Amino acid sequence: MKKMIFSLAMLALSASVVAQQQLWGRAEVKSPVVNVDGTVTFNFFAPDAQKVAVSGDFKEIGQETLAMTKNDRGVWSVTTRALNPELYSYSFLVDGHRILDPATTYVNRDVTTLMDIFIVSKDKGDKGYLYKVNEVAHGDVAKVWYDSPTLKMKRRMTIYTPAGYDKGKRYPVLYLLHGAGGDENAWSELGRAAQILDNLIAQGKAQPMLVVMPNGNPNCQAAPGEWSQGMYIPGHGAIKTKPAAEFPESMMDIVNYVDSHYKTIKKREGRAVCGLSMGGGHTFAVGKLFPTKFDYYGLFSAAIHMSGGNGKSTYERLNGDETVKKQLATLFGSSPKLYSIWIGNEDFLFQQNVDYRKFLDEHGYKYEYHENDGGHIWRNWRIYLNEFAQKLFK
Amino acid sequence: MKKMIFSLAMLALSASVVAQQQLWGRAEVKSPVVNVDGTVTFNFFAPDAQKVAVSGDFKEIGQETLAMTKNDRGVWSVTTRALNPELYSYSFLVDGHRILDPATTYVNRDVTTLMDIFIVSKDKGDKGYLYKVNEVAHGDVAKVWYDSPTLKMKRRMTIYTPAGYDKGKRYPVLYLLHGAGGDENAWSELGRAAQILDNLIAQGKAQPMLVVMPNGNPNCQAAPGEWSQGMYIPGHGAIKTKPAAEFPESMMDIVNYVDSHYKTIKKREGRAVCGLSMGGGHTFAVGKLFPTKFDYYGLFSAAIHMSGGNGKSTYERLNGDETVKKQLATLFGSSPKLYSIWIGNEDFLFQQNVDYRKFLDEHGYKYEYHENDGGHIWRNWRIYLNEFAQKLFK
Repeated sequence: MKKMIFSLAMLALSASVVAQQQLWGRAEVKSPVVNVDGTVTFNFFAPDAQKVAVSGDFKEIGQETLAMTKNDRGVWSVTTRALNPELYSYSFLVDGHRILDPATTYVNRDVTTLMDIFIVSKDKGDKGYLYKVNEVAHGDVAKVWYDSPTLKMKRRMTIYTPAGYDKGKRYPVLYLLHGAGGDENAWSELGRAAQILDNLIAQGKAQPMLVVMPNGNPNCQAAPGEWSQGMYIPGHGAIKTKPAAEFPESMMDIVNYVDSHYKTIKKREGRAVCGLSMGGGHTFAVGKLFPTKFDYYGLFSAAIHMSGGNGKSTYERLNGDETVKKQLATLFGSSPKLYSIWIGNEDFLFQQNVDYRKFLDEHGYKYEYHENDGGHIWRNWRIYLNEFAQKLFK
Repeated sequence: MKKMIFSLAMLALSASVVAQQQLWGRAEVKSPVVNVDGTVTFNFFAPDAQKVAVSGDFKEIGQETLAMTKNDRGVWSVTTRALNPELYSYSFLVDGHRILDPATTYVNRDVTTLMDIFIVSKDKGDKGYLYKVNEVAHGDVAKVWYDSPTLKMKRRMTIYTPAGYDKGKRYPVLYLLHGAGGDENAWSELGRAAQILDNLIAQGKAQPMLVVMPNGNPNCQAAPGEWSQGMYIPGHGAIKTKPAAEFPESMMDIVNYVDSHYKTIKKREGRAVCGLSMGGGHTFAVGKLFPTKFDYYGLFSAAIHMSGGNGKSTYERLNGDETVKKQLATLFGSSPKLYSIWIGNEDFLFQQNVDYRKFLDEHGYKYEYHENDGGHIWRNWRIYLNEFAQKLFK
């Protein structure tokens, strides 16, 4: 059969239309450049700029701003020290304006802010490798609309099905919950959940599993721009009619949908739930509300919220709430396979988790505790997902 | 059951962590503001800037740049004339730098360029409404990995399944192909395919159907950043080992995967194929290569590429290629339900399509022809999808 040839010349022609011209205009420079020694070079062409810097999360904690210097071709540059394997985010500061790097198109949104991203990885054993898309079998990722009778609306969630899912066996399910300001896109974008699972499964470190990432804002059907409220400014102040705590009450709507539409293990031992910050609070609540439905729990930097604040500590509130105490007694009495708490030692929710652990310890409730460095940031939540996922369904 | 209350105060607290602070920082201004009269106001806070403008596709053809003026609070603003219903894209020009609007997070990537987007819609009958997410039933959108024996690789595609797909009946399938520089994300993002289909189906104007959006670059497994080549600079020059014309030869790999994994009508009358630019060329090629597998064809701004150029016109090349003439004779002899050609009168591929129509006319091959204003732009391709989809499977 004779082949039709698209010549490169023709392709170049199609690229040169006036209306499309700018789309194809390569940046004058390459940026960011992840060097073999783990240093990263940023380049920005701006001959007339007075002051250029790059600002990013290059340190373990907080942002760092590095001044860039201009060469005689008008290119501003700076090279970082060697960075640890990680997914980093940054932007440029140009004469007082925050600018995304025009030489890259890889951007994450965190609540209201867009930032350029890049990944440093040295070898297969490091974190950066886990966050990259590697030459391994990939799971599918779907945006799925389900009905929530509890919240009385159709709602959108993200569902990861592992490679090989179409081959017929039944799979366990991890329900993965985001924090305040997030949505059903947060874990798959900022959290690199699909990449982490693809890579862990390929390495034999995690069981093949579905990962279900719902929208934890009970007021919203979907992420900003993905439902009928239009292109509103993201953030939890944007849409409010219901307290966030109503979300966990709708959790079984999600489980029922997933169990009736996917090849799942429709039993406790086939279900895990975890979440970060507000989603850690939701995980805490799911445990109380549905104590025998999930066998694995992960509270990541959890907001252990309890009613009846008024200056009382989380510990006092837990002890003062007979309903919650009874619910937790049922939960821990049913011996879940794993109840785990994960937090960084600089997390602003650290004390709440100290209080909760004190309560659990006094009642003799069994749990795992994982403490690491750092605060309330995605860098930690990706680590927790990586480690938690390896503990499941084995 | 006693409710756990997340107080707004607690949520505010969780938002105030240093590391997260900037994520929540609302822009000082709201932008863009689509006013009720269809004018659009852009606002940008930059008290120290010398010159600020907005550049966007506000005209029917080409870009337009509007100077902005600063008020005494340091906010630069401009209001457009009333804009027709449409999806628009823009960015700011600030002292010589192109900057995305910090007050919005809605961004599309077109090949190498990120642009902010907004939608103008006046009523349910207009184009803008079709591109919005409205309060209608939504289909699901999945990123799916399939095996292509022809191209010898696993590849990623986007699949839209209409609302109600889970209820059990079988659906027809539209195969929707992107142009050069695009990928499996192009039609669902720039093309608003899921929104157009949701809205057409909700209005009873289109049959419920699956829409399958593969990656038309035979050298790539997936969109930039979604496969093992890392976060490379997008554009067809980035990855090249095979001519683009090899993609159509793999078309039945996709059909076979879809027919074996989804509830489809596995017959010619349940299959349509269309595409823009290179994807229009792919559609032309699919018709030649698999003349009895699809019943509906849409060539949008098609690159009717033929081997044996050397200064010859498309018409001369068609007439000089006995293989192609035989293939097209088979195709049109099999009486497809719809063969349609769509192009704007300012499209740089206009003459190729004049030539192809001349060839079709001389052979008495039946086709529909749709010509409108404008050039080789997404604005036209969304219109063509909207109109083509309404002609299918009826």
